[in-house]
Amino acid sequence: MDNERPLFFQVMAYADQSDQDVISMVSGSPDWEAPAALRDGLREYAGGEPSTFQYQPSEGLTKLRAEIAERRGVDMERVVVTNGGAEANYLAMAAAMERERGDEVLLTDPVYPYYPQKAAMLDGTPRYVPVAEDGSLDPVRVREAASEDTAMIVVTTPNNPTGAVYDEATMRELVAIAEEVDALLISDEVYDHFDYSGAFTSALSIDSAHRIVTNSFSKSLAITGFRVGYTVLPEQLVDDVKTRHMLVNVAGSRPAQYAVLQALQGTGTEYYRENRERMQARIEAFTRGLDRADAEYTTPEGGFYVLARFPDFPGTLANVEQLIDDIGVAGMPGEAFGGAREEWLRFALLSPRAEEAADRLGEYFS
Amino acid sequence: MDNERPLFFQVMAYADQSDQDVISMVSGSPDWEAPAALRDGLREYAGGEPSTFQYQPSEGLTKLRAEIAERRGVDMERVVVTNGGAEANYLAMAAAMERERGDEVLLTDPVYPYYPQKAAMLDGTPRYVPVAEDGSLDPVRVREAASEDTAMIVVTTPNNPTGAVYDEATMRELVAIAEEVDALLISDEVYDHFDYSGAFTSALSIDSAHRIVTNSFSKSLAITGFRVGYTVLPEQLVDDVKTRHMLVNVAGSRPAQYAVLQALQGTGTEYYRENRERMQARIEAFTRGLDRADAEYTTPEGGFYVLARFPDFPGTLANVEQLIDDIGVAGMPGEAFGGAREEWLRFALLSPRAEEAADRLGEYFS
Repeated sequence: MDNERPLFFQVMAYADQSDQDVISMVSGSPDWEAPAALRDGLREYAGGEPSTFQYQPSEGLTKLRAEIAERRGVDMERVVVTNGGAEANYLAMAAAMERERGDEVLLTDPVYPYYPQKAAMLDGTPRYVPVAEDGSLDPVRVREAASEDTAMIVVTTPNNPTGAVYDEATMRELVAIAEEVDALLISDEVYDHFDYSGAFTSALSIDSAHRIVTNSFSKSLAITGFRVGYTVLPEQLVDDVKTRHMLVNVAGSRPAQYAVLQALQGTGTEYYRENRERMQARIEAFTRGLDRADAEYTTPEGGFYVLARFPDFPGTLANVEQLIDDIGVAGMPGEAFGGAREEWLRFALLSPRAEEAADRLGEYFS
Repeated sequence: MDNERPLFFQVMAYADQSDQDVISMVSGSPDWEAPAALRDGLREYAGGEPSTFQYQPSEGLTKLRAEIAERRGVDMERVVVTNGGAEANYLAMAAAMERERGDEVLLTDPVYPYYPQKAAMLDGTPRYVPVAEDGSLDPVRVREAASEDTAMIVVTTPNNPTGAVYDEATMRELVAIAEEVDALLISDEVYDHFDYSGAFTSALSIDSAHRIVTNSFSKSLAITGFRVGYTVLPEQLVDDVKTRHMLVNVAGSRPAQYAVLQALQGTGTEYYRENRERMQARIEAFTRGLDRADAEYTTPEGGFYVLARFPDFPGTLANVEQLIDDIGVAGMPGEAFGGAREEWLRFALLSPRAEEAADRLGEYFS
């Protein structure tokens, strides 16, 4: 569980030193253009008065918070702009621990590995709820695992690595369970612009004092390096979260927040649609290759990732390296995401050569 | 101790709603220009390939780390670029607590209030060592307070709020004490480019596995809003600090780090000298006004701040508000910085109208 970071870097390093022409499908960084308005925003910022280079409010540039609040239909006071989705999740998890209503952190298996690592840093105890083969999460299993020891339930929808999108009934149940055991539901929705199912339901749409939504512009604006995310909090947690944010970071970076504000205001819906459709086309092309390779897989309902299992080829680091050596395709070992997908490999469809990778896999395994 | 944030914002809000023409000397934000090369760097970054907008290494842009390492004469592996000096201090203090060699945090009184607040967040227990009237720190007092319960000693040089610069003998002693009691010395040196005494000694110049240096470009490049700082760590702490940095923030913001790199490489020493000399001129003008006001003060040896005590006018919030009402000069109440300077007011000389403020004070109190 604690080894995604080394595994991730091991795979990247292995791919880098390979003599093969490697198609990298390891990292979650978009390979497409950020909006033009974002670039313009940065240039405009670069010419500002000295005072615009100084401290902004800790909770984020006021206009950006207002823009987020309007888009999400929430009171601006409940929005804190963070240093990416990572800080949003850290703050949310810390707030859940600080309530002192238990120290168990309910996670799914497979899991995005930073959650258990953050839980451990915050002295929380991870407890895993296995998801179904198709990636769906059965709230009955969550309810069985939840108790007075539960500090929080952390979910990602659309999911990394399974590609599942949790439907409205699931989200309602998760919020209800959090309320019943006096825990917090933390819903990480950074892939929300990449829902191919039409079933995506933000936890924000279910009113409750027991849920936190985290999000980021890293994926939706193709700027993982800018570090601009946010969290929408129940009113009673706002002060604690702001205090921790202030003591850890003071604030996020102002040029990045300014550029994001300009991008939000100056970018039409077609930008988001094009990126989504590009991903859908890649998924189709990639899964056609998987069919030829006789692989098991679930067609993602959302997000960037495809989990695949090839005949007699478990998702070990050794096998990942073998694929790099033999056909120049770099994925991630399933074991990085917990016990439930050790047999599988995860491919991030964030390369214009995703179809070529699928062809190579199809040929190799057929 | 825990009230700088509210006090700070209370004073700012009070000044904002005043009918007076208020000269604000509250915040630590430079009022001068950032280097031209920084603006150019941002513009250049705005035109980069999509891949340059994505994740950089967690520990910072490689060229920036290399530039810092070269300037500081340390191995690059020991440098972690952070989200401002704030995150550097947070990471350093967390690393000291994680060593589990006591939970006492030795601080000075007066103190930069974020240190005790961070200590509290990390379950540390602040313990205060009073400084002398002139702001100097007697290592004998630190040695008396240090014990096996001491996790860390946190100092700022040049100091906020006293303006003291700790000389080499003091720094050597502080490192020696940290070694003796198996604690860490954390030396926050964000004002290092504003040493008027010539006596400034970075803790980096004293080789030891028991000291961490934190720094930032907020003050030296006049970009408090960019959030680019760094820490130089003893080798044995590097992995733990990197892990926490990764789990809290993933990384700092890439446009900001890129712009700082360009600024470092494209800015001559005259930029730093001009800013330093401007501050020295302001200190002279301001303290002349204090003389007329019959105030006690210490001429700062470094940094941005002057602590002053006026006859029968203690450094309460009420008196700060009275100065705003009566003469439109906004300072900070001394009580924000601990018990030792409750009688005093702190003025940040970060306004081109510092001399005018001094005239108003001189007239008001004479």
